[in-house]
Amino acid sequence: MPDRMESLVRGAAEVLPAGELERKLALGRPLRVKLGIDPTAPDIHLGHTVVLRKLRDFQDAGHVVVLIIGDFTARVGDPSGRSELRPMLSVEQIDANARTYQEQAFKVLDASKVELRRNREWIDKLTADDMAGLMARYTVSRMLERNDFSARYAEKRAIHLHEFLYPLLQGYDSVALECDVELGGTDQLFNLLVGRDLMGKYGKRPQIVMTTPILEGTDARVENGQIVGKKMSKSADNYIGIQEPPEEMFRKAMQIGDDVVFRFFELLSRRTNEEIATLKADKTAGRNPMEIKALLARELVERFHGGEAATQAAREFDRVYSKDAVPDQVPVFEVAPTGVAEVAWALKQANLVASTSEARRLIEQGGVEVDGVRMTDPRHPLEPGREYLVRVGSKNRKFARIRVKGV
Amino acid sequence: MPDRMESLVRGAAEVLPAGELERKLALGRPLRVKLGIDPTAPDIHLGHTVVLRKLRDFQDAGHVVVLIIGDFTARVGDPSGRSELRPMLSVEQIDANARTYQEQAFKVLDASKVELRRNREWIDKLTADDMAGLMARYTVSRMLERNDFSARYAEKRAIHLHEFLYPLLQGYDSVALECDVELGGTDQLFNLLVGRDLMGKYGKRPQIVMTTPILEGTDARVENGQIVGKKMSKSADNYIGIQEPPEEMFRKAMQIGDDVVFRFFELLSRRTNEEIATLKADKTAGRNPMEIKALLARELVERFHGGEAATQAAREFDRVYSKDAVPDQVPVFEVAPTGVAEVAWALKQANLVASTSEARRLIEQGGVEVDGVRMTDPRHPLEPGREYLVRVGSKNRKFARIRVKGV
Repeated sequence: MPDRMESLVRGAAEVLPAGELERKLALGRPLRVKLGIDPTAPDIHLGHTVVLRKLRDFQDAGHVVVLIIGDFTARVGDPSGRSELRPMLSVEQIDANARTYQEQAFKVLDASKVELRRNREWIDKLTADDMAGLMARYTVSRMLERNDFSARYAEKRAIHLHEFLYPLLQGYDSVALECDVELGGTDQLFNLLVGRDLMGKYGKRPQIVMTTPILEGTDARVENGQIVGKKMSKSADNYIGIQEPPEEMFRKAMQIGDDVVFRFFELLSRRTNEEIATLKADKTAGRNPMEIKALLARELVERFHGGEAATQAAREFDRVYSKDAVPDQVPVFEVAPTGVAEVAWALKQANLVASTSEARRLIEQGGVEVDGVRMTDPRHPLEPGREYLVRVGSKNRKFARIRVKGV
Repeated sequence: MPDRMESLVRGAAEVLPAGELERKLALGRPLRVKLGIDPTAPDIHLGHTVVLRKLRDFQDAGHVVVLIIGDFTARVGDPSGRSELRPMLSVEQIDANARTYQEQAFKVLDASKVELRRNREWIDKLTADDMAGLMARYTVSRMLERNDFSARYAEKRAIHLHEFLYPLLQGYDSVALECDVELGGTDQLFNLLVGRDLMGKYGKRPQIVMTTPILEGTDARVENGQIVGKKMSKSADNYIGIQEPPEEMFRKAMQIGDDVVFRFFELLSRRTNEEIATLKADKTAGRNPMEIKALLARELVERFHGGEAATQAAREFDRVYSKDAVPDQVPVFEVAPTGVAEVAWALKQANLVASTSEARRLIEQGGVEVDGVRMTDPRHPLEPGREYLVRVGSKNRKFARIRVKGV
């Protein structure tokens, strides 16, 4: 039992209220674990799959996943974290998005263990009386406590009244389906808690709330020991879409920084905690970070395109990119020419070659690149005041940055 | 036309936007003039009839009155001017109240010229989508601009979300019925303007908004040239219910202060402006204020109980109350006894009788009352430090207050 609990909470940001999940699990019956998704965007990227993977953990532990396609709520639009009103989507758009979303979600979830619902099923039945009754169960000030709403209110940016409906209706989904647990990203915490509150007010047993972290983009980096970077999104162009071709997916995964790759393992991989710990130890022991990253890339491609596609994507990556791959840490050498800094001379100055004549030979053999351009002329001048990325050798290649001092 | 306009705006507090009513009237077609009433309280008092009388003015000028019984909105409860949430009424309660209200309203309105509707007719048809669409047309900050809401929000008293529905649904009534003018008390200004806004947002021609003053209670008085007093209400016990028996209604009308009686004429009477001006001149010329008040009392009783009942009520009032009626202005006399202040002695001291023996004789004949109690003993002591209301004589009776100085 403690083992099962550990795998269920791995990577979760918050589980509220404390101790409640243990108590529910102890009942020994399958729990109803809800995720509400709004088919507002047709394509899912890996950021969306963090919570899906968490749902999958519940499925693997024998629980029932209730996946709610918010075909009504999508029309209202979730104002969470939004600084402005979202446009209302047309019914056709939502329908098309819902189908795509569903297909994609089933690449992470075990479709045979999903209770798939659309919330128009019960929201369309709500009368004006029901809506008034729902609204009567919540106060304006509680709504305005929400960060995004309070900021918009304080800054006099319009909040339209129907935006208040969103958390209420998402919460009403839990009332209608009597869920035990609701999952969502950390940006959904308020909405999930509204659901919990409402269940109590409708005389139901309030759900447990579990949030998962918001995944950063492939451009995330570590600064002062902290992961920094925008969340993964199409608009920031730092996403890996789960519909992308295998090669594209693999290539994008390999762009993830060496420092942050374990964040992606924790939130995306289905490897056990022990396996991930082993990989971390391997890295510390000097294993090539690119190899470790390739394991993640393979796993992701395999999940969405199958094993064969993953093998091919890895091979293709090796062929096309590996020789050009630049490691994260590149030594920097400063050279101080008295006259023109010829490239062969600079390579020797930076100790990348044993002698200027070796440099010339390498250049003539096509074994030197400067800023991605293959050198042909050993006397090619490097400009003072600039820094160049230099690759030397094609098999046991070395990388360096050469900074040319001004004269 | 200007004459008709004058009678339509007489006694109105605000007509918005300026000039619009004239333009609409110039169209020459009957206007649709809306009043929405919530059957929250079963009994109508004269305060409620101010706006009904104004509607009657429109009827008399050939317009169509659209009377909406808010059988849906009553359930939500109008938060206007409320410092707290109103309890939701049961459907049965609302139904019973609606029937009573309707009956009573038709004592002021010409029932043959009323389009009587209940707003569940269209609100019950609203789907969750329609409700979201309605809410999308208004913002939170516009709602919170309303005085009662902003006060409650600032003071951290709960505003429940469904309270925001009230103005929207009242406004939606205008959208559904395409009204030209909506009437309401001054406390309804915000709601009426929401209706106007919404009509524009639904592509309808926005209604004109007309408010009528809130009538004070029968205990209103003039202070520093201003009418002061709580609004007429059952809870302040300063109301005249239109279902009250003729005698009760007459008696209560006669309690209205002489100074404020013309406020009641303006807001309640169906007399013309000229007739009211004549009465004012009469009063200035010294006509007994009680006579003028009796004209109002008769008119009101006649409206709700018929002419014969009014005549009887007036006669009954004369018989029972007139001899006991205390004028507004009563002279005050101070008496300074050296020992016990006997009542006969005090009457002489206050010059209410020519001599103490006349006082004794009057008392023995039952012609003297002190604080409403008939005196039998001329030597009855008046206590030092107190003030007594004294009536002397039964036909040509005099009133005075006698203040007994402390010894």
